[in-house]
Amino acid sequence: MKLAITNAKAMKGQTDPNPLVGAVIINDNRVVGVGTHLKAGGPHAEIHALHMAKDQARGGTMYVTLEPCSHHGRTGPCAEAIVEAGIKKVIIATLDPNPVVAGNGVKILERANIEVVIGVCEEESRKMNEVFNKFIVTKKPFLTLKAAATLDGKIASQTWDSKWITSDVAREDVHKMRSEHAGILVGVHTVIQDDPELTSRIPYGRNPIRLVMDSTLRIPLTSKVVTDNEAETWIFTSQNYQADVKEQLEERGINVFVTSGLHRVNVQEVVTILGEKGVSSVMIEGGAEVNGSFLMEQLVDKLVLYVAPKLIGGKSSPGFIGGEGLEKMSDAIDLSELEMEKVGPDLKFTGYPTYK
Amino acid sequence: MKLAITNAKAMKGQTDPNPLVGAVIINDNRVVGVGTHLKAGGPHAEIHALHMAKDQARGGTMYVTLEPCSHHGRTGPCAEAIVEAGIKKVIIATLDPNPVVAGNGVKILERANIEVVIGVCEEESRKMNEVFNKFIVTKKPFLTLKAAATLDGKIASQTWDSKWITSDVAREDVHKMRSEHAGILVGVHTVIQDDPELTSRIPYGRNPIRLVMDSTLRIPLTSKVVTDNEAETWIFTSQNYQADVKEQLEERGINVFVTSGLHRVNVQEVVTILGEKGVSSVMIEGGAEVNGSFLMEQLVDKLVLYVAPKLIGGKSSPGFIGGEGLEKMSDAIDLSELEMEKVGPDLKFTGYPTYK
Repeated sequence: MKLAITNAKAMKGQTDPNPLVGAVIINDNRVVGVGTHLKAGGPHAEIHALHMAKDQARGGTMYVTLEPCSHHGRTGPCAEAIVEAGIKKVIIATLDPNPVVAGNGVKILERANIEVVIGVCEEESRKMNEVFNKFIVTKKPFLTLKAAATLDGKIASQTWDSKWITSDVAREDVHKMRSEHAGILVGVHTVIQDDPELTSRIPYGRNPIRLVMDSTLRIPLTSKVVTDNEAETWIFTSQNYQADVKEQLEERGINVFVTSGLHRVNVQEVVTILGEKGVSSVMIEGGAEVNGSFLMEQLVDKLVLYVAPKLIGGKSSPGFIGGEGLEKMSDAIDLSELEMEKVGPDLKFTGYPTYK
Repeated sequence: MKLAITNAKAMKGQTDPNPLVGAVIINDNRVVGVGTHLKAGGPHAEIHALHMAKDQARGGTMYVTLEPCSHHGRTGPCAEAIVEAGIKKVIIATLDPNPVVAGNGVKILERANIEVVIGVCEEESRKMNEVFNKFIVTKKPFLTLKAAATLDGKIASQTWDSKWITSDVAREDVHKMRSEHAGILVGVHTVIQDDPELTSRIPYGRNPIRLVMDSTLRIPLTSKVVTDNEAETWIFTSQNYQADVKEQLEERGINVFVTSGLHRVNVQEVVTILGEKGVSSVMIEGGAEVNGSFLMEQLVDKLVLYVAPKLIGGKSSPGFIGGEGLEKMSDAIDLSELEMEKVGPDLKFTGYPTYK
């Protein structure tokens, strides 16, 4: 199963909107087939593994990270292919949360007298597809808030100087994260301040759609995200937008979405729109105000925080979560499954906000 | 040496102003003596170990965490006692930074043809006496800034609600830390806001001297640190103090020190006065402004930061380092030797500010 998971994870960022899946077939104590799902529309992991195994699949055991599918989608149902190949036992890490499958794959296998075991390496396998698991059920993107701060939680000095908080190694890690997301979201303040490209800048890195929150459409028409054509740019605005700028942006091929917010972008609507457009994962890369609004609206699914081992101080230096914040310490948003790893000299925290 | 260090460390908080020292004597592959320095004025670790070993010290090897002393202080010089006991070999973790000793102990041993090895477990042994090492050389206290914050660096919500950020386990750890310090320092704002006792509240815990920064002497005469007699209270003020309050405080047995600062307490002078009064270690327990002023004056030797796995957010929620902060990210204070441990659900960071 570990090998199946490793093969699945290696495809991170390229199976979208499909989940990561890996499969391994064992027969007579030897691996006879290995498969992984490469891309949406292509064969599923189980099929690749069966092809590799050929006749040796008969009587074998398949390890697969996700329940084999039961429906005729772009490819035939894997559960039936497994039955036909004569597999005797299937060991599954997690059931498929997709309501179209959700246990039906297992039923097909069991009806064919195949022994089925569920739940081996379940946690690791579930986490690896956290984006898919949310999107397939809710039709809304999985939102990851990424920030880089000093150990005292600051993303800039009092003079808004922010270059650089973290090391090269951490920044490279961020570029990799970008390539694994379908969209990357910033506030217009960040565009004005830094004029970022918001591309992944790594070999073979996929560039996510650039999503800009801009309540009045004050984005400079000369900014890179408007002019460079390196990736799509979508702008979300409020009822308070400047109509002429909208036209000019649209002439340049930029998508502008007007939300119902009177003076501020309605972030709940942003998430709904993104889901409707098929954007399954978004990395929120702040500013403080944008981070704060998504977090306080309880929309953030995951936090990834890079912390540099340094202190900048200052009452008015911005922290990574702006806005009003919560009123009481007892209202604070807990982070579950908080994990830490070293990335160069910096620390990388990963956790899941649990809202009250 | 590990046993010697363990015995030395077990006395943390009770040898002040002397260092922690442990000694172990081995003869014929058996431990024949164990000693630790219990308290200032009492026998040194080496002497305890020699007493335990009696005749078996002859021909033996002594492991000792600190260079044996060479001077006649409150007790005779250990180096001579070691020579007289017939020890053949002495293994020392660290040389004594005390300028009165500083290599002279080793000289006495070597002159008596005792084999001397220096530097075994040096780092651990040096760190264990970081307070002593600074105080004996500079005559100024070792300052540890302790704070408890959310993962976004906040010590309270926008409404200044701060109860509780960290868990019971972390707060108990703080009480233990308090008992290991000679003084505990807060701003008057903390006294007004929380009316804390600032005692160690653990069995056998020593209560440190309570040190309050109060530029105008606005401390309430009814506050616990003024009235409860649980520990000494010293107040540091500026030229802008209220003379009548000073008198009233002194009548209650409170020491008031007037620094040369016109409107703010001169924190450099505070440190000098504390050193002159023999206070070797101080734990700074904030507020944001007090933390900021000691850090920006480059007076903080060590940072101990408890981080709760939660987020509170808010542009105006206070962080643990207030004041102006530093202007440029490149000016940020680096933390060297940053270490992390779990304390209950919380994280405890320890690091040493390196100033530019």
